[in-house]
Amino acid sequence: MMSLQQKASEWSGVAPENAFAIDEVNLFEKLGLQPFVDLSTAFYTRVYEDEEEWFRSIFANSKKEDAIQNQYEFFVQRMGGPPLYSQRKGHPALIGRHRPFPVTHQAAERWLHHMQQALDSIQNIDPDSKIKMMNFFRHTAYFLVAGDELKNSAQGAPCKHAAGKSAAG
Amino acid sequence: MMSLQQKASEWSGVAPENAFAIDEVNLFEKLGLQPFVDLSTAFYTRVYEDEEEWFRSIFANSKKEDAIQNQYEFFVQRMGGPPLYSQRKGHPALIGRHRPFPVTHQAAERWLHHMQQALDSIQNIDPDSKIKMMNFFRHTAYFLVAGDELKNSAQGAPCKHAAGKSAAG
Repeated sequence: MMSLQQKASEWSGVAPENAFAIDEVNLFEKLGLQPFVDLSTAFYTRVYEDEEEWFRSIFANSKKEDAIQNQYEFFVQRMGGPPLYSQRKGHPALIGRHRPFPVTHQAAERWLHHMQQALDSIQNIDPDSKIKMMNFFRHTAYFLVAGDELKNSAQGAPCKHAAGKSAAG
Repeated sequence: MMSLQQKASEWSGVAPENAFAIDEVNLFEKLGLQPFVDLSTAFYTRVYEDEEEWFRSIFANSKKEDAIQNQYEFFVQRMGGPPLYSQRKGHPALIGRHRPFPVTHQAAERWLHHMQQALDSIQNIDPDSKIKMMNFFRHTAYFLVAGDELKNSAQGAPCKHAAGKSAAG
């Protein structure tokens, strides 16, 4: 059986060493806080206005400002900054916290589309950091698609009728 | 509804600022790699020999040396060292990866009992670091108990007959 990491790499096309190239330099020290706030603001501004209702509706139960804060605090913490996210919310627990949402391949691609556009719109992140971040995002998005499938696995779900999901990969 | 963080704090008795006091100093830089290897080795040596069969059996499908490596690589990564865990396995995804296991209050206490004993047996960790680590472990153990309950929540589990769990807290 493929591991979460193997699925993430195969589906995203991003090898682990490229996904975690974000750790080669301390991106928070290099960039400071503001680019992370700007990026998450640009991202969720796009998401909450998405013309694709199926994608927009995934976020309908969260307030935009909360979504922005959750995201940039996680990015800051993961990319070398202070543990803002954990101090406020605990472990990132990415799979557990995405459990309520349908993290399909299609949703991952839509998320990545908006993130690429948001990243393109940000001036105060250098091109090399943008590439590192996008590889991290791409790998992580598919890591969560792999995590989403655990909901339907015999290992994770004791019920046989967990409905509505198709096998992927 | 209480958040994961609130449940972790209430059940563990460890406030978030104490749980994440591990971030006040870089414990990996302070301690080096060896104490983490020693700690996880001492911990799993106890666990795999636990006289409590119900607890020992939780780990029966994993090899002891793999369990040791997974644990110390995560600790090293989370406590300021290189991202050994993510390079090999991806995001820690603590709740997702504990999904196959029955992380009850009782299991958390047994885990913490062994970890306290393991920590007591390690010479090359100073007392202040031990207190910080134990607060982190205690909070995290109950964070995972809270995460475990998501399996039975309406939000997380579409099936009504997911059996065998009692409400806690």
